[in-house]
Amino acid sequence: MALRKGARRLSPVKLRLPPPALLAVFYIIFICVGAIFLWLPISHHGNIGLGEALFTSASAVTVTGLVLADTGAAFTGFGQAVIAVLIQLGGLGLMTFAVLLLGALGIPFGMPQRLILREDLNQTSLANLAFLARLILIVALVCEGIGALLLAVVFVPAYGWGGIWQAIFHSVSAFNNAGFALHPDSLSQWVGNPLVNIVIPVLFILGGLGFIVIGDIYQQRKWRRLTLHSKLMLIGTLVLILWGSVVFGALEWTNPGTLGPLGTGEKLWASWFQGVTPRTAGFNTIHTGAMHDSSTMLTMTLMLVGGGSASTAGGIKVTTLFVLILATVAFFRRQTTLHAFGRSIGLEEVVKVMALTTLSMLLVLSGIFIISISHDGQFIDLAFEVTSAFGTVGLSRGATGELDTLGRCVIILMMFVGRVGPLAVGFFLATRSVPRVKYPAGQIYLG
Amino acid sequence: MALRKGARRLSPVKLRLPPPALLAVFYIIFICVGAIFLWLPISHHGNIGLGEALFTSASAVTVTGLVLADTGAAFTGFGQAVIAVLIQLGGLGLMTFAVLLLGALGIPFGMPQRLILREDLNQTSLANLAFLARLILIVALVCEGIGALLLAVVFVPAYGWGGIWQAIFHSVSAFNNAGFALHPDSLSQWVGNPLVNIVIPVLFILGGLGFIVIGDIYQQRKWRRLTLHSKLMLIGTLVLILWGSVVFGALEWTNPGTLGPLGTGEKLWASWFQGVTPRTAGFNTIHTGAMHDSSTMLTMTLMLVGGGSASTAGGIKVTTLFVLILATVAFFRRQTTLHAFGRSIGLEEVVKVMALTTLSMLLVLSGIFIISISHDGQFIDLAFEVTSAFGTVGLSRGATGELDTLGRCVIILMMFVGRVGPLAVGFFLATRSVPRVKYPAGQIYLG
Ligand SMILES: [K+]
Ligand SMILES: [K+]
Repeated sequence: MALRKGARRLSPVKLRLPPPALLAVFYIIFICVGAIFLWLPISHHGNIGLGEALFTSASAVTVTGLVLADTGAAFTGFGQAVIAVLIQLGGLGLMTFAVLLLGALGIPFGMPQRLILREDLNQTSLANLAFLARLILIVALVCEGIGALLLAVVFVPAYGWGGIWQAIFHSVSAFNNAGFALHPDSLSQWVGNPLVNIVIPVLFILGGLGFIVIGDIYQQRKWRRLTLHSKLMLIGTLVLILWGSVVFGALEWTNPGTLGPLGTGEKLWASWFQGVTPRTAGFNTIHTGAMHDSSTMLTMTLMLVGGGSASTAGGIKVTTLFVLILATVAFFRRQTTLHAFGRSIGLEEVVKVMALTTLSMLLVLSGIFIISISHDGQFIDLAFEVTSAFGTVGLSRGATGELDTLGRCVIILMMFVGRVGPLAVGFFLATRSVPRVKYPAGQIYLG
Repeated sequence: MALRKGARRLSPVKLRLPPPALLAVFYIIFICVGAIFLWLPISHHGNIGLGEALFTSASAVTVTGLVLADTGAAFTGFGQAVIAVLIQLGGLGLMTFAVLLLGALGIPFGMPQRLILREDLNQTSLANLAFLARLILIVALVCEGIGALLLAVVFVPAYGWGGIWQAIFHSVSAFNNAGFALHPDSLSQWVGNPLVNIVIPVLFILGGLGFIVIGDIYQQRKWRRLTLHSKLMLIGTLVLILWGSVVFGALEWTNPGTLGPLGTGEKLWASWFQGVTPRTAGFNTIHTGAMHDSSTMLTMTLMLVGGGSASTAGGIKVTTLFVLILATVAFFRRQTTLHAFGRSIGLEEVVKVMALTTLSMLLVLSGIFIISISHDGQFIDLAFEVTSAFGTVGLSRGATGELDTLGRCVIILMMFVGRVGPLAVGFFLATRSVPRVKYPAGQIYLG
């Protein structure tokens, strides 16, 4: 009851709409305002209509990174700055909102002591919101600042002082998992550059773990003390990165369109990068369209999984996949309860996971179906593009540029639903029912 | 406990292996013996090696219908008869086994009174098995006999007395959802023939509903009295057929490779036929390979769903899809229990459905992934072929004929797992735990 009271108190005092609807409205406003800014003549060099501006704004606010035009060539410095601001608002706004929401709903998570919004305290307030937003912003700015400084070491010698802006833009884009780059081939020029191959992935992996996990690690330091959610996220991320990198490398090693012409060192760096970028980062260092069908499929499955809850990443989330597999294994071992790291996971979680996964799969399949009706391109390219949009990844095999208005609308809708939807679902997950406590249940976040 | 006792009593007395393993062994023996028969020189006209014989035998026993050679041209009358026997054994053997298993495990289902194998009676015995198998065989032979007589009206005028064999073969193939035809273009010659377009689908829909549903309808006659399982199957089948036929017609109406050149009447017949055949029948009256990507995708989703439990059909089953959707809807409506037709469906069912669906999706995706590594064909064609094999459907866009040995092995494995797997899973579903009775729960069969 205390949990529900918390949720109720939040609603009538500060918000008239239910929080997920409020979030959706905020995002629509962000997107429209962004589109108008990007449409202004000072933002671009003449080739951006309102449709392109809207698409770019939606892609930036949802931190997806699918583009119709080359960001570096089509937009002026002002336009690029608008995009960076939209990315920061979209990425951090959602993260703040998610953490606040989870806290307001009484779900415990690892945070600095002062901020633990326990259900029995009901201490959700505007002061806390401001403090929380500031804290998340500080974490983000520190990460992005360090990232920009390190990237400047690469970009300034290559581009002079303009390289500073490049370093800032790519650092912001990376931490927010936005995938926007200022070069038409993304980061392919630096396919073998160790600094770029370490700084960019570290930024988007940190952003994709989510503030809750970062806060937990910062606060607890020791593995044993981490929450179940943090442990699952870290192990899951590690396994998915290893799987993605090793299999990508094995499948593409001799492909003349991707790894084939590179030296061994570059091949290894590229395999690493292409193995991590599907966790919804969206940068690429090789030509995505030249990938073999098998590695394309691998990338699609990784894009669907995505990163962590309440992070800058998209997808159905690592924890959702984990519960899915755990429940399946437990079922065939005839266990009626799920366990992980000495904590039990309730059957209710399983139902949540199923609802979330079923809905996600239906949305992705519907999107591919609708686009395939009106477009005659390669099926796998269309499927890849829709998956990339739903997972807010931004990797592209080139089909996005060739879509008609209907196709663009589907992609915009997919990006929006892929970004706002899981949190709306997360709201249902958190408020649906009060669990009957029988054992010390480990809370994990789904969606 | 009575339920468990029943399961235990069955095992040690007559079977050493657990029933699913026994079933798998039986199927492997069927397939191998069939392969040897089909390999004999009297079975074919000279172009069938042991590999082709094994593939054909596996396809027949699993009632899939994917072929490497034109059945009518490559095999002699004897060979065709062997295939028909394998189809009958594969289709009915599994149905008998499934019904027996469900009965032995104490799961109530609609059957003639004498055969209700109630858990408190533990009346599983060899006598019952023989009676049940005979009953199912009689139902099958009556359906197939009537079907053959009707089909003879079409085939005898066209092919003389040889048309009688054609009528028998296609009737057996249809009732068992096997999809084997004696013409290289399946039933395309009769695309506008009303008799063929009614008799064949009625046969495979009846076979695909399953003996339990047919028995229930035969016994109860009135809708109100049918079991939850029968109601779900009938409604689900109707909805899927309407959806498939209407959407297929709309998508292909002007496609020059499929419906385009046909008259309006033929277009309507073909839409109906192509809308029902993905419920794992596998016949076709238009060129599958010429279908648009969107209708190919539609067909793939329908093939994955398939028909009814304990039937001659494959797929994850209609009831599984129903629970999947019901649980998702209930979740978003914040209901903690599932209801359908005045009966509740336990949360345990949801976990079962999730395990079954997750495993099926993983298997299909793995199959597509493995085949896509070593084959450079159109991705959608490879995906279609694997889906068709896993759903034991038998529709083909032509890729099966071009597969190398690895690819053929994957397809054989997919057919086998798609046929035997769900029942093995069904065994787990049925024996996993004794439900705590709280309300009159409606039992439905999953897998
Ligand atoms: K992205
Ligand atoms: K079939």
